[in-house]
Amino acid sequence: MTAIGVFDSGVGGLTVVAALAQRLPDESIVYLGDTARLPYGSKSAATVTQYTRNNLRFLLQRGVKAVVVACNTASALALPNLEPEVPTWGVVEPGARRAAAVCSRHVGVIGTESTVRSDAYALALARLAPHLRVSSRACPLFVPLVEEGWHDDPVTEQVARRYLAPLLAAGVDTLVLGCTHYPLLRPLLARVAGQGVDLVDSADSVAEEVARGLAAAGLAAPPGSAVEHHLYVTDASSGFADFAQRILGPATRPLEWVEVT
Amino acid sequence: MTAIGVFDSGVGGLTVVAALAQRLPDESIVYLGDTARLPYGSKSAATVTQYTRNNLRFLLQRGVKAVVVACNTASALALPNLEPEVPTWGVVEPGARRAAAVCSRHVGVIGTESTVRSDAYALALARLAPHLRVSSRACPLFVPLVEEGWHDDPVTEQVARRYLAPLLAAGVDTLVLGCTHYPLLRPLLARVAGQGVDLVDSADSVAEEVARGLAAAGLAAPPGSAVEHHLYVTDASSGFADFAQRILGPATRPLEWVEVT
Repeated sequence: MTAIGVFDSGVGGLTVVAALAQRLPDESIVYLGDTARLPYGSKSAATVTQYTRNNLRFLLQRGVKAVVVACNTASALALPNLEPEVPTWGVVEPGARRAAAVCSRHVGVIGTESTVRSDAYALALARLAPHLRVSSRACPLFVPLVEEGWHDDPVTEQVARRYLAPLLAAGVDTLVLGCTHYPLLRPLLARVAGQGVDLVDSADSVAEEVARGLAAAGLAAPPGSAVEHHLYVTDASSGFADFAQRILGPATRPLEWVEVT
Repeated sequence: MTAIGVFDSGVGGLTVVAALAQRLPDESIVYLGDTARLPYGSKSAATVTQYTRNNLRFLLQRGVKAVVVACNTASALALPNLEPEVPTWGVVEPGARRAAAVCSRHVGVIGTESTVRSDAYALALARLAPHLRVSSRACPLFVPLVEEGWHDDPVTEQVARRYLAPLLAAGVDTLVLGCTHYPLLRPLLARVAGQGVDLVDSADSVAEEVARGLAAAGLAAPPGSAVEHHLYVTDASSGFADFAQRILGPATRPLEWVEVT
Protein backbone atom coordinates (compact mmCIF):
# COMPACT_ATOMS: atom_id res chain seq x y z
CA MET A 1 0.00 0.00 0.00
CA THR A 2 1.60 3.24 -1.12
CA ALA A 3 0.32 6.55 0.08
CA ILE A 4 -0.09 10.01 -1.38
CA GLY A 5 2.25 12.47 0.34
CA VAL A 6 0.90 15.90 1.18
CA PHE A 7 2.75 18.76 2.81
CA ASP A 8 2.05 22.27 3.95
CA SER A 9 3.88 24.83 6.05
CA GLY A 10 1.45 24.10 8.87
CA VAL A 11 -1.84 22.38 9.51
CA GLY A 12 -3.90 24.57 7.13
CA GLY A 13 -3.10 22.06 4.37
CA LEU A 14 -5.38 19.60 6.11
CA THR A 15 -8.16 21.33 4.15
CA VAL A 16 -6.54 19.68 1.10
CA VAL A 17 -6.27 16.34 2.95
CA ALA A 18 -10.00 16.54 3.70
CA ALA A 19 -10.77 17.12 0.01
CA LEU A 20 -8.44 14.27 -1.07
CA ALA A 21 -9.89 11.85 1.48
CA GLN A 22 -13.39 12.61 0.25
CA ARG A 23 -12.58 12.36 -3.47
CA LEU A 24 -10.18 9.37 -3.10
CA PRO A 25 -11.51 7.26 -0.19
CA ASP A 26 -9.26 4.30 -1.07
CA GLU A 27 -6.01 6.25 -0.85
CA SER A 28 -3.78 6.41 2.20
CA ILE A 29 -2.28 9.81 2.95
CA VAL A 30 0.98 10.79 4.64
CA TYR A 31 0.74 14.42 5.71
CA LEU A 32 3.63 16.61 6.82
CA GLY A 33 2.96 20.00 8.42
CA ASP A 34 6.19 21.96 8.81
CA THR A 35 4.91 23.69 11.95
CA ALA A 36 8.44 24.27 13.31
CA ARG A 37 9.30 26.60 10.44
CA LEU A 38 5.92 28.08 9.52
CA PRO A 39 4.84 30.47 8.18
CA TYR A 40 6.34 30.31 4.70
CA GLY A 41 4.28 33.23 3.41
CA SER A 42 6.58 36.00 4.65
CA LYS A 43 9.82 34.30 3.59
CA SER A 44 12.02 34.38 0.51
CA ALA A 45 12.04 31.97 -2.44
CA ALA A 46 15.46 30.63 -1.40
CA THR A 47 14.30 29.70 2.09
CA VAL A 48 10.94 28.30 0.95
CA THR A 49 12.69 26.23 -1.74
CA GLN A 50 15.09 24.75 0.79
CA TYR A 51 12.24 23.84 3.16
CA THR A 52 10.24 22.34 0.27
CA ARG A 53 13.21 20.19 -0.73
CA ASN A 54 13.52 18.94 2.89
CA ASN A 55 9.81 18.13 3.04
CA LEU A 56 9.82 16.29 -0.30
CA ARG A 57 12.77 14.19 0.86
CA PHE A 58 10.91 13.28 4.05
CA LEU A 59 7.84 12.16 2.13
CA LEU A 60 9.84 10.23 -0.50
CA GLN A 61 11.71 8.42 2.27
CA ARG A 62 8.28 7.20 3.38
CA GLY A 63 7.76 5.74 -0.09
CA VAL A 64 4.91 7.92 -1.29
CA LYS A 65 3.81 7.37 -4.89
CA ALA A 66 2.78 10.98 -5.50
CA VAL A 67 3.02 14.33 -3.76
CA VAL A 68 0.61 17.21 -3.31
CA VAL A 69 2.21 20.50 -2.28
CA ALA A 70 -0.78 21.89 -0.37
CA CYS A 71 1.00 25.12 0.50
CA ASN A 72 0.33 27.94 -1.95
CA THR A 73 3.59 29.69 -1.09
CA ALA A 74 5.67 26.55 -1.69
CA SER A 75 3.69 25.80 -4.88
CA ALA A 76 4.34 29.31 -6.15
CA LEU A 77 7.95 29.86 -5.09
CA ALA A 78 9.58 26.43 -4.88
CA LEU A 79 7.87 23.95 -7.21
CA PRO A 80 9.05 25.64 -10.44
CA ASN A 81 12.67 25.07 -9.27
CA LEU A 82 12.32 21.38 -8.37
CA GLU A 83 12.00 18.13 -10.31
CA PRO A 84 10.51 15.60 -7.90
CA GLU A 85 10.90 11.88 -8.71
CA VAL A 86 7.18 11.12 -8.41
CA PRO A 87 4.09 12.81 -9.89
CA THR A 88 3.66 16.08 -7.99
CA TRP A 89 0.87 18.62 -7.89
CA GLY A 90 0.95 22.12 -6.54
CA VAL A 91 -2.20 24.04 -5.71
CA VAL A 92 -1.60 27.09 -7.91
CA GLU A 93 -2.27 25.47 -11.31
CA PRO A 94 -5.50 23.73 -10.24
CA GLY A 95 -6.72 26.90 -8.52
CA ALA A 96 -5.93 29.01 -11.57
CA ARG A 97 -7.64 26.47 -13.85
CA ARG A 98 -10.80 26.55 -11.76
CA ALA A 99 -10.74 30.36 -11.68
CA ALA A 100 -10.32 30.46 -15.48
CA ALA A 101 -13.35 28.17 -15.82
CA VAL A 102 -15.71 30.25 -13.68
CA CYS A 103 -14.50 33.80 -14.23
CA SER A 104 -16.04 36.02 -16.84
CA ARG A 105 -13.88 39.15 -16.61
CA HIS A 106 -11.67 39.88 -13.67
CA VAL A 107 -10.02 37.50 -11.19
CA GLY A 108 -8.99 38.67 -7.73
CA VAL A 109 -6.27 36.63 -5.99
CA ILE A 110 -5.65 36.80 -2.26
CA GLY A 111 -2.75 35.03 -0.56
CA THR A 112 0.33 35.47 1.57
CA GLU A 113 2.91 38.19 0.96
CA SER A 114 5.27 35.78 -0.83
CA THR A 115 2.61 34.09 -2.95
CA VAL A 116 1.30 37.43 -4.16
CA ARG A 117 4.80 38.79 -4.77
CA SER A 118 5.63 35.70 -6.88
CA ASP A 119 2.76 36.52 -9.28
CA ALA A 120 2.31 32.74 -9.74
CA TYR A 121 -1.49 32.89 -10.11
CA ALA A 122 -1.33 35.82 -12.52
CA LEU A 123 1.26 33.99 -14.66
CA ALA A 124 -0.78 30.77 -14.69
CA LEU A 125 -3.95 32.70 -15.58
CA ALA A 126 -2.14 34.59 -18.35
CA ARG A 127 -1.36 31.20 -19.94
CA LEU A 128 -4.79 29.64 -19.31
CA ALA A 129 -7.06 32.59 -20.02
CA PRO A 130 -5.19 35.57 -21.42
CA HIS A 131 -8.45 37.56 -21.85
CA LEU A 132 -9.01 37.78 -18.08
CA ARG A 133 -7.82 40.67 -15.93
CA VAL A 134 -6.05 39.64 -12.72
CA SER A 135 -5.57 41.72 -9.54
CA SER A 136 -3.83 40.44 -6.42
CA ARG A 137 -3.70 41.44 -2.78
CA ALA A 138 -1.59 40.05 0.07
CA CYS A 139 -3.60 39.44 3.25
CA PRO A 140 -0.94 38.68 5.89
CA LEU A 141 -3.30 38.92 8.86
CA PHE A 142 -5.73 36.22 7.67
CA VAL A 143 -3.50 33.29 8.74
CA PRO A 144 -2.96 34.54 12.32
CA LEU A 145 -6.65 35.48 12.60
CA VAL A 146 -7.66 31.95 11.55
CA GLU A 147 -5.10 30.45 13.93
CA GLU A 148 -6.50 32.60 16.74
CA GLY A 149 -9.88 31.01 16.01
CA TRP A 150 -11.48 34.30 14.97
CA HIS A 151 -13.04 32.85 11.78
CA ASP A 152 -16.24 34.70 12.18
CA ASP A 153 -15.46 37.76 14.16
CA PRO A 154 -16.13 41.49 13.72
CA VAL A 155 -12.37 42.19 13.81
CA THR A 156 -11.71 39.68 11.03
CA GLU A 157 -14.59 41.10 9.02
CA GLN A 158 -13.12 44.61 9.33
CA VAL A 159 -9.71 43.35 8.23
CA ALA A 160 -11.31 41.50 5.31
CA ARG A 161 -13.23 44.63 4.24
CA ARG A 162 -9.98 46.57 4.20
CA TYR A 163 -8.00 43.91 2.31
CA LEU A 164 -10.74 43.26 -0.26
CA ALA A 165 -11.80 46.88 -0.82
CA PRO A 166 -9.39 47.59 -3.72
CA LEU A 167 -10.26 44.28 -5.42
CA LEU A 168 -14.00 44.86 -5.08
CA ALA A 169 -13.66 48.46 -6.23
CA ALA A 170 -11.81 47.18 -9.31
CA GLY A 171 -14.79 44.92 -10.08
CA VAL A 172 -13.47 41.37 -9.61
CA ASP A 173 -16.14 38.71 -10.22
CA THR A 174 -14.04 35.78 -8.94
CA LEU A 175 -11.87 35.56 -5.85
CA VAL A 176 -9.16 32.89 -5.58
CA LEU A 177 -8.51 31.84 -1.97
CA GLY A 178 -4.78 31.45 -2.54
CA CYS A 179 -3.80 30.06 0.86
CA THR A 180 -4.83 26.82 2.58
CA HIS A 181 -6.04 28.70 5.64
CA TYR A 182 -8.54 30.81 3.75
CA PRO A 183 -11.25 28.17 3.18
CA LEU A 184 -11.89 28.47 6.93
CA LEU A 185 -12.87 32.11 6.29
CA ARG A 186 -15.18 31.22 3.40
CA PRO A 187 -18.52 32.28 4.97
CA LEU A 188 -17.08 35.59 6.13
CA LEU A 189 -15.32 36.26 2.82
CA ALA A 190 -18.50 35.40 0.89
CA ARG A 191 -20.39 37.95 2.99
CA VAL A 192 -17.75 40.65 2.49
CA ALA A 193 -17.29 39.97 -1.24
CA GLY A 194 -21.04 39.92 -1.89
CA GLN A 195 -23.23 37.82 -4.18
CA GLY A 196 -21.64 38.79 -7.48
CA VAL A 197 -18.29 37.21 -6.60
CA ASP A 198 -17.45 33.48 -6.95
CA LEU A 199 -14.98 32.14 -4.37
CA VAL A 200 -12.48 29.60 -5.71
CA ASP A 201 -10.61 27.26 -3.39
CA SER A 202 -7.87 24.99 -4.77
CA ALA A 203 -8.63 22.03 -2.49
CA ASP A 204 -11.43 20.52 -4.57
CA SER A 205 -9.77 21.17 -7.91
CA VAL A 206 -6.44 19.69 -6.81
CA ALA A 207 -8.23 16.59 -5.46
CA GLU A 208 -9.95 16.19 -8.84
CA GLU A 209 -6.69 16.57 -10.77
CA VAL A 210 -4.88 14.12 -8.49
CA ALA A 211 -7.70 11.59 -8.97
CA ARG A 212 -7.46 11.87 -12.75
CA GLY A 213 -3.65 11.88 -12.74
CA LEU A 214 -3.31 8.77 -10.56
CA ALA A 215 -5.86 6.91 -12.67
CA ALA A 216 -4.10 7.90 -15.91
CA ALA A 217 -0.71 6.78 -14.53
CA GLY A 218 -2.11 3.47 -13.24
CA LEU A 219 -1.21 4.52 -9.69
CA ALA A 220 -4.70 4.62 -8.14
CA ALA A 221 -5.32 2.37 -5.15
CA PRO A 222 -7.80 -0.43 -5.96
CA PRO A 223 -11.30 0.01 -4.51
CA GLY A 224 -11.62 -1.34 -0.99
CA SER A 225 -7.90 -0.84 -0.16
CA ALA A 226 -6.99 -0.71 3.52
CA VAL A 227 -6.54 2.95 4.23
CA GLU A 228 -4.05 4.35 6.73
CA HIS A 229 -3.45 8.05 7.22
CA HIS A 230 -0.48 9.57 9.04
CA LEU A 231 -0.28 13.18 10.16
CA TYR A 232 3.26 14.36 10.92
CA VAL A 233 4.26 17.79 12.22
CA THR A 234 7.73 19.24 12.84
CA ASP A 235 6.59 21.03 16.00
CA ALA A 236 3.97 19.53 18.28
CA SER A 237 2.71 22.61 20.12
CA SER A 238 -0.81 21.95 21.39
CA GLY A 239 -2.24 24.84 19.38
CA PHE A 240 -1.58 22.93 16.16
CA ALA A 241 -3.46 19.87 17.41
CA ASP A 242 -6.50 22.00 18.30
CA PHE A 243 -6.38 23.61 14.88
CA ALA A 244 -6.14 20.20 13.15
CA GLN A 245 -9.25 19.07 14.99
CA ARG A 246 -11.10 22.15 13.83
CA ILE A 247 -10.44 21.12 10.22
CA LEU A 248 -10.73 17.32 10.35
CA GLY A 249 -13.12 16.90 13.27
CA PRO A 250 -12.59 15.35 16.69
CA ALA A 251 -12.04 11.82 15.31
CA THR A 252 -8.82 12.89 13.60
CA ARG A 253 -5.64 10.90 14.11
CA PRO A 254 -3.13 12.30 16.59
CA LEU A 255 -0.31 14.45 15.22
CA GLU A 256 3.06 12.66 15.27
CA TRP A 257 6.18 14.74 15.86
CA VAL A 258 9.15 14.34 13.47
CA GLU A 259 12.33 16.28 12.83
CA VAL A 260 12.87 17.42 9.25
CA THR A 261 16.07 19.17 8.20
CA MET B 1 37.40 44.28 19.52
CA THR B 2 34.88 41.78 20.79
CA ALA B 3 31.18 42.32 20.34
CA ILE B 4 28.04 41.63 22.30
CA GLY B 5 25.91 39.01 20.55
CA VAL B 6 22.16 39.55 20.47
CA PHE B 7 19.56 37.27 18.96
CA ASP B 8 15.83 37.22 18.47
CA SER B 9 13.43 35.10 16.45
CA GLY B 10 13.06 38.01 14.04
CA VAL B 11 13.84 41.70 13.78
CA GLY B 12 11.72 42.77 16.77
CA GLY B 13 14.81 42.24 18.95
CA LEU B 14 16.33 45.32 17.32
CA THR B 15 14.38 47.26 19.98
CA VAL B 16 16.88 45.71 22.43
CA VAL B 17 19.80 46.56 20.11
CA ALA B 18 18.63 50.18 20.08
CA ALA B 19 18.57 50.25 23.89
CA LEU B 20 22.00 48.59 24.12
CA ALA B 21 23.55 50.96 21.55
CA GLN B 22 22.24 53.93 23.48
CA ARG B 23 23.34 52.68 26.92
CA LEU B 24 26.66 51.22 25.69
CA PRO B 25 27.86 53.42 22.82
CA ASP B 26 31.37 51.90 22.87
CA GLU B 27 30.21 48.32 22.33
CA SER B 28 30.01 46.58 18.97
CA ILE B 29 26.96 44.38 18.45
CA VAL B 30 26.45 41.25 16.36
CA TYR B 31 22.73 40.71 15.88
CA LEU B 32 21.09 37.54 14.57
CA GLY B 33 17.41 37.55 13.62
CA ASP B 34 16.21 34.01 12.93
CA THR B 35 13.70 35.24 10.36
CA ALA B 36 13.69 31.91 8.48
CA ARG B 37 12.18 30.09 11.45
CA LEU B 38 10.16 32.82 13.15
CA PRO B 39 7.86 33.06 14.99
CA TYR B 40 8.99 31.15 18.07
CA GLY B 41 5.96 32.21 20.10
CA SER B 42 3.61 29.49 18.89
CA LYS B 43 6.17 26.68 19.10
CA SER B 44 7.13 24.10 21.72
CA ALA B 45 9.98 24.29 24.24
CA ALA B 46 11.85 21.50 22.43
CA THR B 47 11.85 23.34 19.10
CA VAL B 48 12.64 26.74 20.63
CA THR B 49 15.51 25.23 22.64
CA GLN B 50 17.01 23.65 19.53
CA TYR B 51 16.80 26.95 17.62
CA THR B 52 18.29 28.84 20.57
CA ARG B 53 21.21 26.40 20.71
CA ASN B 54 21.83 26.93 16.96
CA ASN B 55 21.73 30.72 17.37
CA LEU B 56 24.09 30.70 20.35
CA ARG B 57 26.55 28.57 18.40
CA PHE B 58 26.43 31.03 15.50
CA LEU B 59 27.16 33.99 17.77
CA LEU B 60 29.93 32.18 19.69
CA GLN B 61 31.60 31.25 16.39
CA ARG B 62 31.78 34.99 15.76
CA GLY B 63 33.69 35.39 19.02
CA VAL B 64 31.16 37.39 21.04
CA LYS B 65 32.09 38.07 24.67
CA ALA B 66 28.51 38.07 25.96
CA VAL B 67 25.04 37.22 24.67
CA VAL B 68 21.65 38.85 25.07
CA VAL B 69 18.70 36.65 24.24
CA ALA B 70 16.33 39.41 23.13
CA CYS B 71 13.49 37.00 22.41
CA ASN B 72 11.10 36.59 25.32
CA THR B 73 10.00 33.15 24.13
CA ALA B 74 13.58 31.87 23.90
CA SER B 75 14.43 33.52 27.25
CA ALA B 76 11.44 31.82 28.86
CA LEU B 77 11.54 28.37 27.26
CA ALA B 78 15.15 27.71 26.29
CA LEU B 79 17.56 29.65 28.51
CA PRO B 80 16.78 27.65 31.67
CA ASN B 81 17.95 24.49 29.82
CA LEU B 82 21.23 25.88 28.49
CA GLU B 83 24.62 26.74 29.96
CA PRO B 84 26.28 29.16 27.55
CA GLU B 85 30.07 29.60 27.73
CA VAL B 86 29.88 33.41 27.99
CA PRO B 87 27.85 35.74 30.24
CA THR B 88 24.29 35.58 28.93
CA TRP B 89 21.19 37.63 29.69
CA GLY B 90 17.62 36.83 28.85
CA VAL B 91 14.90 39.49 28.88
CA VAL B 92 12.53 37.83 31.35
CA GLU B 93 14.54 38.40 34.54
CA PRO B 94 15.27 42.10 33.84
CA GLY B 95 11.65 42.69 32.82
CA ALA B 96 10.37 40.97 35.96
CA ARG B 97 12.82 42.92 38.12
CA ARG B 98 11.65 46.23 36.68
CA ALA B 99 8.00 45.22 37.14
CA ALA B 100 8.68 44.26 40.77
CA ALA B 101 10.25 47.69 41.32
CA VAL B 102 7.34 49.72 39.95
CA CYS B 103 4.30 47.57 40.76
CA SER B 104 2.30 48.11 43.90
CA ARG B 105 -0.25 45.29 43.73
CA HIS B 106 -0.96 43.40 40.57
CA VAL B 107 1.25 42.76 37.51
CA GLY B 108 -0.27 41.96 34.13
CA VAL B 109 1.99 40.13 31.67
CA ILE B 110 1.30 40.01 27.95
CA GLY B 111 3.34 37.92 25.51
CA THR B 112 3.24 35.17 22.94
CA GLU B 113 1.34 31.93 23.45
CA SER B 114 4.50 30.02 24.43
CA THR B 115 5.90 32.71 26.74
CA VAL B 116 2.62 32.93 28.63
CA ARG B 117 2.22 29.15 28.77
CA SER B 118 5.74 28.86 30.25
CA ASP B 119 4.74 31.06 33.21
CA ALA B 120 8.33 32.38 33.23
CA TYR B 121 7.40 35.92 34.29
CA ALA B 122 5.06 34.69 37.02
CA LEU B 123 7.78 32.39 38.38
CA ALA B 124 10.41 35.16 38.33
CA LEU B 125 8.01 37.57 40.03
CA ALA B 126 7.10 34.98 42.66
CA ARG B 127 10.79 34.87 43.60
CA LEU B 128 11.41 38.62 43.39
CA ALA B 129 8.20 39.97 44.91
CA PRO B 130 6.01 37.22 46.34
CA HIS B 131 3.47 39.75 47.62
CA LEU B 132 2.44 40.77 44.08
CA ARG B 133 -0.43 39.19 42.19
CA VAL B 134 0.37 38.21 38.61
CA SER B 135 -2.07 37.67 35.72
CA SER B 136 -1.02 36.76 32.18
CA ARG B 137 -2.60 36.88 28.75
CA ALA B 138 -1.31 35.64 25.40
CA CYS B 139 -1.75 38.15 22.58
CA PRO B 140 -0.90 36.16 19.43
CA LEU B 141 -2.21 38.78 16.99
CA PHE B 142 0.03 41.62 18.19
CA VAL B 143 3.15 40.38 16.35
CA PRO B 144 1.44 40.06 12.94
CA LEU B 145 -0.35 43.40 13.46
CA VAL B 146 2.98 45.10 14.18
CA GLU B 147 4.57 43.38 11.18
CA GLU B 148 1.68 44.57 9.01
CA GLY B 149 2.57 48.11 10.10
CA TRP B 150 -0.76 48.66 11.88
CA HIS B 151 0.85 50.07 15.06
CA ASP B 152 -1.71 52.71 15.51
CA ASP B 153 -4.82 51.47 13.86
CA PRO B 154 -8.46 51.10 14.93
CA VAL B 155 -8.29 47.34 14.27
CA THR B 156 -5.24 46.94 16.50
CA GLU B 157 -6.90 49.04 19.18
CA GLN B 158 -9.97 46.80 19.10
CA VAL B 159 -7.79 43.70 19.38
CA ALA B 160 -5.86 45.29 22.25
CA ARG B 161 -9.09 46.18 24.07
CA ARG B 162 -10.22 42.58 23.81
CA TYR B 163 -6.87 41.10 24.92
CA LEU B 164 -6.39 43.53 27.82
CA ALA B 165 -10.00 43.54 29.07
CA PRO B 166 -9.61 40.65 31.55
CA LEU B 167 -6.34 42.08 32.90
CA LEU B 168 -7.79 45.56 33.33
CA ALA B 169 -10.96 44.16 34.90
CA ALA B 170 -8.76 42.28 37.37
CA GLY B 171 -7.13 45.60 38.34
CA VAL B 172 -3.53 45.32 37.15
CA ASP B 173 -1.49 48.46 37.84
CA THR B 174 1.58 47.38 35.82
CA LEU B 175 1.71 45.78 32.39
CA VAL B 176 4.84 43.90 31.25
CA LEU B 177 5.34 44.07 27.47
CA GLY B 178 6.67 40.50 27.30
CA CYS B 179 7.60 40.39 23.62
CA THR B 180 10.17 42.42 21.69
CA HIS B 181 7.53 43.55 19.18
CA TYR B 182 5.28 45.15 21.77
CA PRO B 183 7.30 48.35 22.44
CA LEU B 184 6.19 49.39 18.95
CA LEU B 185 2.60 49.32 20.26
CA ARG B 186 3.43 51.34 23.36
CA PRO B 187 1.38 54.50 22.60
CA LEU B 188 -1.67 52.43 21.66
CA LEU B 189 -1.31 50.11 24.67
CA ALA B 190 -0.86 53.10 26.99
CA ARG B 191 -4.12 54.55 25.65
CA VAL B 192 -6.01 51.27 26.06
CA ALA B 193 -4.57 50.49 29.50
CA GLY B 194 -5.26 53.99 30.81
CA GLN B 195 -3.34 56.32 33.12
CA GLY B 196 -3.31 54.08 36.20
CA VAL B 197 -1.18 51.39 34.50
CA ASP B 198 2.64 51.49 34.16
CA LEU B 199 4.01 49.86 31.03
CA VAL B 200 7.25 47.91 31.53
CA ASP B 201 9.49 47.02 28.60
CA SER B 202 12.54 44.78 29.12
CA ALA B 203 14.79 46.59 26.63
CA ASP B 204 15.98 49.38 28.94
CA SER B 205 16.35 47.15 31.99
CA VAL B 206 18.32 44.50 30.11
CA ALA B 207 20.64 47.19 28.69
CA GLU B 208 21.23 48.47 32.21
CA GLU B 209 21.96 44.98 33.57
CA VAL B 210 24.31 44.18 30.68
CA ALA B 211 26.18 47.45 31.29
CA ARG B 212 26.64 46.61 34.98
CA GLY B 213 27.50 42.96 34.26
CA LEU B 214 30.16 43.74 31.66
CA ALA B 215 31.74 46.37 33.91
CA ALA B 216 31.78 43.96 36.86
CA ALA B 217 33.37 41.20 34.77
CA GLY B 218 35.97 43.56 33.29
CA LEU B 219 34.53 42.92 29.84
CA ALA B 220 33.40 46.45 28.98
CA ALA B 221 34.87 48.05 25.86
CA PRO B 222 37.13 51.02 26.68
CA PRO B 223 35.66 54.47 25.98
CA GLY B 224 36.23 55.58 22.40
CA SER B 225 36.45 52.03 21.01
CA ALA B 226 35.86 51.63 17.28
CA VAL B 227 32.31 50.37 17.01
CA GLU B 228 31.10 48.00 14.33
CA HIS B 229 27.61 46.55 14.27
CA HIS B 230 26.51 43.57 12.17
CA LEU B 231 22.90 42.61 11.56
CA TYR B 232 22.43 39.03 10.34
CA VAL B 233 19.15 37.39 9.37
CA THR B 234 18.43 33.79 8.36
CA ASP B 235 15.89 34.88 5.73
CA ALA B 236 16.32 38.06 3.77
CA SER B 237 12.76 38.76 2.66
CA SER B 238 12.35 42.48 1.95
CA GLY B 239 9.61 42.85 4.58
CA PHE B 240 12.20 42.25 7.33
CA ALA B 241 14.48 45.00 6.02
CA ASP B 242 11.58 47.49 6.01
CA PHE B 243 10.68 46.48 9.53
CA ALA B 244 14.31 46.87 10.70
CA GLN B 245 14.36 50.40 9.31
CA ARG B 246 11.18 51.21 11.20
CA ILE B 247 12.98 50.34 14.46
CA LEU B 248 16.52 51.59 13.85
CA GLY B 249 15.88 54.42 11.39
CA PRO B 250 16.86 54.77 7.74
CA ALA B 251 20.61 54.93 8.45
CA THR B 252 20.61 51.34 9.71
CA ARG B 253 23.16 48.86 8.36
CA PRO B 254 21.93 46.47 5.68
CA LEU B 255 20.76 43.02 6.82
CA GLU B 256 23.24 40.26 5.91
CA TRP B 257 21.84 36.83 5.06
CA VAL B 258 23.34 33.77 6.79
CA GLU B 259 22.33 30.14 7.12
CA VAL B 260 22.00 28.84 10.68
CA THR B 261 21.22 25.18 11.37
